[in-house]
Amino acid sequence: MSTQTKHTALFGFGTVGQGFYHYLAENNNDKQLATIVIKNASKSRIPDNLNFTTNVNDVFQNNQINTVVELISDYKEAFNIVKNALEQGKKVISSNKKMIAHHLEELVELEQQFGGKFLYEGAVAGSIPIIKIINEHYAFDEITEIRGILNGTSNYVLTQVFEKGIGYQEALHQAQQAGFAEANPAADVEGFDALYKLLILTTHAFGKFITPEKALNIGINNLKNSDINFAKANNLKIKLVASAKSHNNKLTLSVLPTFVDENDDLFHIKNEFNGVEVVSKNIGSQFFKGKGAGKLPTGHVVFSDYQNVEKTTYTYQHVPSGKRLKYETKESIWVYSNKITLLEKYLEDVVLLNGPQGYGSIKIADLIKAKDLLNLHQVSVIALSENVKQKLFLQLKHKIQLVYA
Amino acid sequence: MSTQTKHTALFGFGTVGQGFYHYLAENNNDKQLATIVIKNASKSRIPDNLNFTTNVNDVFQNNQINTVVELISDYKEAFNIVKNALEQGKKVISSNKKMIAHHLEELVELEQQFGGKFLYEGAVAGSIPIIKIINEHYAFDEITEIRGILNGTSNYVLTQVFEKGIGYQEALHQAQQAGFAEANPAADVEGFDALYKLLILTTHAFGKFITPEKALNIGINNLKNSDINFAKANNLKIKLVASAKSHNNKLTLSVLPTFVDENDDLFHIKNEFNGVEVVSKNIGSQFFKGKGAGKLPTGHVVFSDYQNVEKTTYTYQHVPSGKRLKYETKESIWVYSNKITLLEKYLEDVVLLNGPQGYGSIKIADLIKAKDLLNLHQVSVIALSENVKQKLFLQLKHKIQLVYA
Repeated sequence: MSTQTKHTALFGFGTVGQGFYHYLAENNNDKQLATIVIKNASKSRIPDNLNFTTNVNDVFQNNQINTVVELISDYKEAFNIVKNALEQGKKVISSNKKMIAHHLEELVELEQQFGGKFLYEGAVAGSIPIIKIINEHYAFDEITEIRGILNGTSNYVLTQVFEKGIGYQEALHQAQQAGFAEANPAADVEGFDALYKLLILTTHAFGKFITPEKALNIGINNLKNSDINFAKANNLKIKLVASAKSHNNKLTLSVLPTFVDENDDLFHIKNEFNGVEVVSKNIGSQFFKGKGAGKLPTGHVVFSDYQNVEKTTYTYQHVPSGKRLKYETKESIWVYSNKITLLEKYLEDVVLLNGPQGYGSIKIADLIKAKDLLNLHQVSVIALSENVKQKLFLQLKHKIQLVYA
Repeated sequence: MSTQTKHTALFGFGTVGQGFYHYLAENNNDKQLATIVIKNASKSRIPDNLNFTTNVNDVFQNNQINTVVELISDYKEAFNIVKNALEQGKKVISSNKKMIAHHLEELVELEQQFGGKFLYEGAVAGSIPIIKIINEHYAFDEITEIRGILNGTSNYVLTQVFEKGIGYQEALHQAQQAGFAEANPAADVEGFDALYKLLILTTHAFGKFITPEKALNIGINNLKNSDINFAKANNLKIKLVASAKSHNNKLTLSVLPTFVDENDDLFHIKNEFNGVEVVSKNIGSQFFKGKGAGKLPTGHVVFSDYQNVEKTTYTYQHVPSGKRLKYETKESIWVYSNKITLLEKYLEDVVLLNGPQGYGSIKIADLIKAKDLLNLHQVSVIALSENVKQKLFLQLKHKIQLVYA
């Protein structure tokens, strides 16, 4: 189709939508834009002379339109738009991580059934082209682990808390002021946003479609000042780490506040940046860092998807081990909590430090069960990365030896 | 051409050659391999049952062969092989950074003239697909700076020196034992290898072909224990940093030992790892880290080029600013030296610390001129990154105030 044809519809004109339009205009592709579907016609828009509409039928009853760029925030509406477009065999680009994490398997089926296309690099890790890297760069390797900081808002808050010594609530307020946190930041600080992104990466890296309700996400919203002080006293930081790992044909997943030390690449990811480590059989560890959000960084990868929509096709389950892998929540992990005793009935092992504060070993499945209880009592849970665990436990031994020697 | 046709010739069966063959066999593409051209027929090979030859004519007089994978170490021979292959319109994959840095402009002309293909992801930063990232991910952005640790050998040596407190010579010896340094490590420790890689990246990021003799490389071979101690006393590390930067339509380049502080991503790159920071107009800073060398990591990107040789075409001078950019060596930089007075006649400004040790401001062009003198007297030169400079000079001010107050 000619570059002059008005074959593209854009849904949404918020931050990312405006970023996408910026590149469209800069590269003289704005003539391809038939219409921009918005919800609120009375809101003022910049530029204001574009072909705005509030009527979805302008898109779905127009045969000229073969490409849909979906950048709205409501995930249920987004699902309807993407589903309808794919059922019409259209090419669809989306960055709605919540919608994609909930419906990816179905949407990929629709893509294949009706011969359309579905790309969504903008949904994960902002400016880092991590889906492209996993699909293309790791096509001949086997990924064994992905772990990263995938939510800029919570990382911004944690950075402020650690570097400026302010409290969680104040840091969250500052993040909202700086435009790095939504008025309602629940999805970010409770770890849902990071989980959605992790699940999308899991599909590409491990060939598995896993829906959010089956996986563990604990956010930073229950962290205590005492946790921060404990971290600082041990030269650690707390980061919200999303992790997917395969081992002995088992796939484990989690989003958890995690103690990390300075040898960990994630330790050095500050403010609104994202960082992703990919570990594979042949290449070893690689690490990618970039801005996790923002008009131009995210708009850039959406536009890149748009420009390459003909020649890019995502691959799924190309992973050699994918078919053998079993999603598993019975694996145990060690966590720290300001009130580990609350988890008593789930713990396989426990080390008390001061009063209720301490370490415990617990199955991921049990942490999923205990989530409501933890939130109800506002109790913190922080995972120990492997080398941090060894360091903290070694310390403990020393103390015990000192006491009982 | 059928996947069964023997259409590929491999030149060289060293570390990377064996790595490439590993993937070829693993993906059942080894039937495509017509012949492996080696230099020394009497050397034992694993596997030893492949179609080895020492006769170059087996390749260039065989019309069946349309693809050449060049992985030998001799850069002049490599040039002849690649040139001949491109003149026959063949598809060529190489990882010979020295050869490419010296002849890239000519080879790209041959590629275009005879309709062949020339890819070389394996030449830069080992497992990091940095050329692909620059070409594809930054296609709609303008890169303003690339800086990185591009030589694993010198980084391994520097890591040992800083972490184990051993001397440069001992660290170099250990690197050779560990297989991270050649018997003749001159190209690595004198900064030539990093320069070759920087020049290749410069072509892709800035659209300029610049040959090695026109650019500055100072290695780590003249670093003194006093330099290391000075760094440690100021919580700094010394890294061999390759940098290309555009500013006001001027392009500046250098490979220099550089003081970096803990806020710098390069501070945390250890041992044989490479790290590359890319700064661009729209995306800001992104950072990529991975293994810089090795059989499987480098073999992987060579194989990836091989598998995608039909659909990948490198772009040159696609950069909006490329045509306006002027390569410039008249820019001044601040350096530290254990004997800054040796550079006296070139210095625009000088701050003495203890005796001949101190800081000086000097044009890059003058450092290029002074290189032989520096090597003759084994005098160290270490660049100051911008924030390190501010930190060190602020300190200086304090001292001066203390003395003269």
